[in-house]
Amino acid sequence: MRENTIKSIWKQGGCALNGWLHIPSTWSAELMAHAGWDSVTVDMQHGLMGLDTAILMLQAISTTQTIPLVRVPWNEPGTIGRVLDAGAFGVICPMVDTRAQCEAFVGACRYHPQGYRSLGPTRAKVYAGDDYGKYANEAIITLAMIETQLAMDNLDAIASTPGLDGFYIGPGDLRLSLLGAGGIDNDDPPFMAAVDAILAAAKRHSIAVGMHTGSTAYARKMIEHGMQFVTIQSDTEMLRQAAAANVASIRAQPAPSKRADGY
Amino acid sequence: MRENTIKSIWKQGGCALNGWLHIPSTWSAELMAHAGWDSVTVDMQHGLMGLDTAILMLQAISTTQTIPLVRVPWNEPGTIGRVLDAGAFGVICPMVDTRAQCEAFVGACRYHPQGYRSLGPTRAKVYAGDDYGKYANEAIITLAMIETQLAMDNLDAIASTPGLDGFYIGPGDLRLSLLGAGGIDNDDPPFMAAVDAILAAAKRHSIAVGMHTGSTAYARKMIEHGMQFVTIQSDTEMLRQAAAANVASIRAQPAPSKRADGY
Amino acid sequence: MRENTIKSIWKQGGCALNGWLHIPSTWSAELMAHAGWDSVTVDMQHGLMGLDTAILMLQAISTTQTIPLVRVPWNEPGTIGRVLDAGAFGVICPMVDTRAQCEAFVGACRYHPQGYRSLGPTRAKVYAGDDYGKYANEAIITLAMIETQLAMDNLDAIASTPGLDGFYIGPGDLRLSLLGAGGIDNDDPPFMAAVDAILAAAKRHSIAVGMHTGSTAYARKMIEHGMQFVTIQSDTEMLRQAAAANVASIRAQPAPSKRADGY
Amino acid sequence: MRENTIKSIWKQGGCALNGWLHIPSTWSAELMAHAGWDSVTVDMQHGLMGLDTAILMLQAISTTQTIPLVRVPWNEPGTIGRVLDAGAFGVICPMVDTRAQCEAFVGACRYHPQGYRSLGPTRAKVYAGDDYGKYANEAIITLAMIETQLAMDNLDAIASTPGLDGFYIGPGDLRLSLLGAGGIDNDDPPFMAAVDAILAAAKRHSIAVGMHTGSTAYARKMIEHGMQFVTIQSDTEMLRQAAAANVASIRAQPAPSKRADGY
Amino acid sequence: MRENTIKSIWKQGGCALNGWLHIPSTWSAELMAHAGWDSVTVDMQHGLMGLDTAILMLQAISTTQTIPLVRVPWNEPGTIGRVLDAGAFGVICPMVDTRAQCEAFVGACRYHPQGYRSLGPTRAKVYAGDDYGKYANEAIITLAMIETQLAMDNLDAIASTPGLDGFYIGPGDLRLSLLGAGGIDNDDPPFMAAVDAILAAAKRHSIAVGMHTGSTAYARKMIEHGMQFVTIQSDTEMLRQAAAANVASIRAQPAPSKRADGY
Amino acid sequence: MRENTIKSIWKQGGCALNGWLHIPSTWSAELMAHAGWDSVTVDMQHGLMGLDTAILMLQAISTTQTIPLVRVPWNEPGTIGRVLDAGAFGVICPMVDTRAQCEAFVGACRYHPQGYRSLGPTRAKVYAGDDYGKYANEAIITLAMIETQLAMDNLDAIASTPGLDGFYIGPGDLRLSLLGAGGIDNDDPPFMAAVDAILAAAKRHSIAVGMHTGSTAYARKMIEHGMQFVTIQSDTEMLRQAAAANVASIRAQPAPSKRADGY
Repeated sequence: MRENTIKSIWKQGGCALNGWLHIPSTWSAELMAHAGWDSVTVDMQHGLMGLDTAILMLQAISTTQTIPLVRVPWNEPGTIGRVLDAGAFGVICPMVDTRAQCEAFVGACRYHPQGYRSLGPTRAKVYAGDDYGKYANEAIITLAMIETQLAMDNLDAIASTPGLDGFYIGPGDLRLSLLGAGGIDNDDPPFMAAVDAILAAAKRHSIAVGMHTGSTAYARKMIEHGMQFVTIQSDTEMLRQAAAANVASIRAQPAPSKRADGY
Repeated sequence: MRENTIKSIWKQGGCALNGWLHIPSTWSAELMAHAGWDSVTVDMQHGLMGLDTAILMLQAISTTQTIPLVRVPWNEPGTIGRVLDAGAFGVICPMVDTRAQCEAFVGACRYHPQGYRSLGPTRAKVYAGDDYGKYANEAIITLAMIETQLAMDNLDAIASTPGLDGFYIGPGDLRLSLLGAGGIDNDDPPFMAAVDAILAAAKRHSIAVGMHTGSTAYARKMIEHGMQFVTIQSDTEMLRQAAAANVASIRAQPAPSKRADGY
Repeated sequence: MRENTIKSIWKQGGCALNGWLHIPSTWSAELMAHAGWDSVTVDMQHGLMGLDTAILMLQAISTTQTIPLVRVPWNEPGTIGRVLDAGAFGVICPMVDTRAQCEAFVGACRYHPQGYRSLGPTRAKVYAGDDYGKYANEAIITLAMIETQLAMDNLDAIASTPGLDGFYIGPGDLRLSLLGAGGIDNDDPPFMAAVDAILAAAKRHSIAVGMHTGSTAYARKMIEHGMQFVTIQSDTEMLRQAAAANVASIRAQPAPSKRADGY
Repeated sequence: MRENTIKSIWKQGGCALNGWLHIPSTWSAELMAHAGWDSVTVDMQHGLMGLDTAILMLQAISTTQTIPLVRVPWNEPGTIGRVLDAGAFGVICPMVDTRAQCEAFVGACRYHPQGYRSLGPTRAKVYAGDDYGKYANEAIITLAMIETQLAMDNLDAIASTPGLDGFYIGPGDLRLSLLGAGGIDNDDPPFMAAVDAILAAAKRHSIAVGMHTGSTAYARKMIEHGMQFVTIQSDTEMLRQAAAANVASIRAQPAPSKRADGY
Repeated sequence: MRENTIKSIWKQGGCALNGWLHIPSTWSAELMAHAGWDSVTVDMQHGLMGLDTAILMLQAISTTQTIPLVRVPWNEPGTIGRVLDAGAFGVICPMVDTRAQCEAFVGACRYHPQGYRSLGPTRAKVYAGDDYGKYANEAIITLAMIETQLAMDNLDAIASTPGLDGFYIGPGDLRLSLLGAGGIDNDDPPFMAAVDAILAAAKRHSIAVGMHTGSTAYARKMIEHGMQFVTIQSDTEMLRQAAAANVASIRAQPAPSKRADGY
Repeated sequence: MRENTIKSIWKQGGCALNGWLHIPSTWSAELMAHAGWDSVTVDMQHGLMGLDTAILMLQAISTTQTIPLVRVPWNEPGTIGRVLDAGAFGVICPMVDTRAQCEAFVGACRYHPQGYRSLGPTRAKVYAGDDYGKYANEAIITLAMIETQLAMDNLDAIASTPGLDGFYIGPGDLRLSLLGAGGIDNDDPPFMAAVDAILAAAKRHSIAVGMHTGSTAYARKMIEHGMQFVTIQSDTEMLRQAAAANVASIRAQPAPSKRADGY
């Protein structure tokens, strides 16, 4: 069984760096997998890929040792099973608000008796080894997103779900639910109070906490604040910013004039 | 007929900014088309898309006013006709070394009697207007790549090909052919001598010159040197650099330590 | 924020003309978007496209000002969120039979506090503008399909769901449920009684009513009857009928005989 | 209406041979459809195709008279409706543990009043005939998978669901649930006791039983044991074994030496 | 070996009706193949599909007995071989102006010793039968397009090429070359003189003549004029016209007013 | 620069085992790459994939250390450059009959001054290392197919082409050309005489010889006869044979009778 190095990083007290894939392309996925992230996540919730393309992207990531994760569009066992069978080594599940939802999520990721995932790891077995079936329950990472006031109210109930490996904070939705407006890379006290409550609940139940960030500066701050898993931007955001910067740099200067010698 | 704004920029003595697409995805293409470039080029020579995907990308670019161009993989009339019928407003053709090759290239882009392109602008007509057939010969841009010593020897013969709109300098291949080693963003005298010869020939025959660059600094220098069309990097290079910078920024600092308060 | 012109038509008391997409192709989608409809709907319920292709079709529609809508395959928040993030400006949801189902549907289309849609309008923001997050709750159209006796029994409860913009009548399923047999473009009294009940409930709660039709004649009749949104046929049905007519026209005449002069 | 020959085989007391598709390709699907199976099943649960590709594969199977079936990823009406509209002549549903789940599954496959499937058999009508709507409730096969102890406890309740055509045994999950370890082609007494209980319940309610097997030997044994539908391996497993055998055959012999005459 | 029914129609002195595919979709291809045409042609020259999609479309056409043809983008043996191996039962080649070009085209369609096509009919053998290799040289149709003055000058040289089955007239390019302006469905004397010259040359060398038309009326006229193969419109043109007619029909009447009773 | 292990095998006097890909799927490609072959070849000549899919397959192969090769559809520099840029570590070129053709082929695979390949190894550099440009001329394998009498007449001229790494024998076409009938796995004296002539010419010019075979028995024979590269069957042929064997095994026995006990 191939090692899930994210778990190994956590065991050593480290923080995993995670890349985020919105572009529906195997090539951008392969590039990102080569960029040095510990893991990259195919975001099937807000990304532009359907399942057909997501599977191809999981293959492309496997050209490297980078760990492939998937954020599923919703807490639905059919999709969760499919991305795991296709070789995802972990699942991030959005909008986990209650213990029952968390049990449904984690159960979809675990074989009997820990859960109700169906046996048939067609590609996972080729990717991870013939003993995948034996070790998958232990190796696969499950991250529940805490994004609402309701989830905040249920933190301990959710955190204590057997088989849950961690929380993942989606700052946009969480801020929208708690404070009435989205936004990322914000560390105002009300938001940080929520973050601290999440970290504390996770600590009580010995699970990890991860977070989506929009810059290395904020990511660094959050790592220092206790995060064990941080995502920085997305392929889309990186490409958008880089292209905008290139164009702006040229446009900023006076319109090019003709050379004095007439060329 | 939709205006080819690249030609308009040239008429006003300006320099067109061109984005470069290697990622086989409509989403990265749409993002790039929104980034402020005057044109974006689907690079079917060194990019990772085949014709099926290139056509989809041309559609995605058309969600904006950015002009869609294609670099074809080779001087072959079948492919040239197809990308034009799919709505490309210009073609960059690699490795044009002789007048005969240039005539073959330009002829594939022009309807009778200026050339031998076949009538049937299936999507081009929808994209550009019902009068496409009437104005296409004038609107479509043809750029011949000067990449070898042989092409340098034939500059005037190539530049004077009726219907040719410009040269496009591929610095990697041109340097390899002239100087024995590739590389971009280099302005050593032997290379700049070649660039100047190209600019001079273009001026003699009233065509434009464009160039591929790897940075805004070099692009700026080349604009000032007389280029009327500059490409800066590619989607792949921008994404690669941005991801590497993000990862390096986090990795550069000491490994994150646990918070003093135990989180 | 890009204007949702369907809402504008409704405000002016007009009826929106809607095209219907079953062919899984960006090209037929782009053609249909150019045909003059006010909106075109990617039908992910009975059409032949999965999510991967649906996203590409939404991009192709955006080459025009035609409003892109999606009929989702089922009342499931994961898919609803994905097509909205990909730029759909409205969702038609099948088989909405109860108030609870309608609340689940509408909630999936609205950000907190109107609903529980997750923030992350990756493409929608590029398509509609950076302020998409602020105005989406108002701009996005939600249409609940009334297709069963149960839905008829719950018309007021459904119609009064906060955030619901309209009903969409699927005549085939509604007739099957009410009258025991499907069929479209039928205006027999029992069916029209149901239609009138739907129109009346909609009027009581100030929402719009739309309907699927199979011909311009019936569409005209339904517009005059009070519909504010009519669909006419589908790309598949139009292509099928046109091809059949062409073939029949030639086959109808005697088999072609040889010319008298032997050719 | 095209005949569903699997039903015809069952009426004659025969056993249908079923091929299993995991490779997301129309070409392997077409090849398998030509191989002599009575039916082939696109496995959307453990196979590598999403819905976009599954639809293409259903078309490819229709180049033959082989009956196209689909195993859906989960008991979810949206996906079930879509594969039926795309021409599947039967659905295998995983993890049917209770009567309510079975009713939800079968209802999604049947038009009113037998179920709640939505009318709109876009491709099914072209594949099977214009009278598809009239005969589909009778022609479409519904197979519920018995994979857990809970399902074993509910055998009669499930088997008696109106409109259910048969059970399909997934030996891996069933063994895991009953005996704590997966595996196929095993006929140890505890497992065969469960198989016999399933056969007995099916007989009481006049439905068929099918099973997944890993070899012709075991398939033969199960046919003799009363199965009316057997699957043998999958395209993936056949290709994997054949390639491994070819490689092993060459590798097994001593490394090739140079010919005596020096070639 | 499956019969090429187009050849059979010709032997009986009939005219084959041909459908034309520009939409890159297996679904529109399958629909068209069901519409009653004798053959349908995947137009890889002016259509929107690349080779990947063209192959899928050839599979979709094979769900019927309709004969699959391909117009290749250019007279290039690689592409010709590929579409034949994928099951095309005939090739239409654009811009065949000389005897040498025609020999290159026909040779690419025929196995040794009639030509130089490479053996390896991977899908063709499955589609047409195991004896494909033996009968393909006879069954495959080769149609050379006459589209230029140069081709008109070489009519007899081209028509007498061994293995050529017919001419196909592309009226747009032919008119452009001969008369300086494109257009279809035109029977002015200068154009008809060219048509008659083509028919006469074909008769001298016992090959067929086909033509692209834009309406059943013109197609009928051309059949009566001696054509043995006529294409009517394309999927794109049919869909465009049908959608435009539907929209225009509704828009033509006064804007819908509100019902007197307020709905 | 990643090592091209096929060259290493040759240096050690060994024979490389090559798998052959006709199925247009990344999954079958990944499976085959895991099967133990030294290399696998994406056959773009007789396989069912276009360039879009071929590129995805090259990525899938890179999940392993198996060397990716491509057989191009024709001796055309555009396609050759594209598959090399996408990461192919060698090219098999069909129908190389003359020295000039061989020079054109090899030149398309080599950078200046050994050839005229254009610089831009977009994916190759990521796959093989940043120093790809420096070592590619040495690492990339070029195999010319000897398939005609003309090629036999030019064996020494072809074999002595600088930069050519080997011959690849396509027995079907070669037998058709020399003996008037195709077929594989045949070792009748006339064919073996040709094979020996090819081996002898290769030995004179120090290049390797490979061959396509249909069975391990024949492959073994050819290895002993001096081949340094053998292909055994294809994914399609393996799947076809395995499926046929499974079906035949069940069909061969008497139709299954009902169990004595009535099941």
